[in-house]
Amino acid sequence: MTEDIPPIAERVGDALRDREATVAVAESCTGGLIGSLLTDVPGSSDYFDRSLVTYSYDAKREELAVSRESLDEAGAVSDPVARQMAQGVRDRAGTTWGVSTTGIAGPSGGSDEKPVGTVFVGIAYAAPWGSGNSSTRVRRYEFDGSRTAIKRQIAEQAFEDLEAAVERGAP
Amino acid sequence: MTEDIPPIAERVGDALRDREATVAVAESCTGGLIGSLLTDVPGSSDYFDRSLVTYSYDAKREELAVSRESLDEAGAVSDPVARQMAQGVRDRAGTTWGVSTTGIAGPSGGSDEKPVGTVFVGIAYAAPWGSGNSSTRVRRYEFDGSRTAIKRQIAEQAFEDLEAAVERGAP
Repeated sequence: MTEDIPPIAERVGDALRDREATVAVAESCTGGLIGSLLTDVPGSSDYFDRSLVTYSYDAKREELAVSRESLDEAGAVSDPVARQMAQGVRDRAGTTWGVSTTGIAGPSGGSDEKPVGTVFVGIAYAAPWGSGNSSTRVRRYEFDGSRTAIKRQIAEQAFEDLEAAVERGAP
Repeated sequence: MTEDIPPIAERVGDALRDREATVAVAESCTGGLIGSLLTDVPGSSDYFDRSLVTYSYDAKREELAVSRESLDEAGAVSDPVARQMAQGVRDRAGTTWGVSTTGIAGPSGGSDEKPVGTVFVGIAYAAPWGSGNSSTRVRRYEFDGSRTAIKRQIAEQAFEDLEAAVERGAP
């Protein structure tokens, strides 16, 4: 009955569990897909705390303290918003890691500067025991395909970024 | 490029859009799957506001104001917790509808009273324009299969319950 567990979600889960680390997620364009894949793995409650799927502007501001200025000036699909989302959910949940996605899944909503398939993935980290050692990194990617194919590629990229970060102990 | 849009998510979306209604979701066992399926539909930002995937006890309390008493006495998988989750996310988001799921996706965690596959689905409603007309209804179901198969059946049941509620204008 385990044949349908996504391998990357299981690998990330093992990496987190091995280090007694935890994760919270802030999703926009993926709509909950990252949380769903993470929780396809039995026992994921050991390391997965929550995912805040903030689809509207209001949700991003209310749930994650994303600033109105960033939303208005850089846009919802931007480096500063991905950064505030990852930090916001990590701060809120008190987890070791925070992960965020904000992008354009299409088919509409693209522009020359940010075509359909553009996404920003944020990874936020805080060392345990209040050492004050925390940092956040945002990467930009572009994917092709249908809306659901783009969502899936974004989720897998977020897992890859998280797995690499967990293994090296930094975003 | 639309062949992979889940038909039930599209139907629910059309029902909401036709009535200028909005929805927010509070997910536990489905882990984000409901939000993900809703947002597989292009244009879902017209009616989908947010999904709060509250996997941990702390997340349920902090994000949705679920009471510690209900969690301790009735358990996370219970009628009162599903009720507070649906009401909590609707209140928080200010949407027309709130939907919640809390259940046991397995393969472990089941009991005689609540076997694997048990789920409570909550639907909360508030009439627009502050009329004070609001109500919530929780239904209990049991499903069979693998963890991912159970998650999928729960998500589809939640869509069916929501669609029926939207059509009759009451949970």
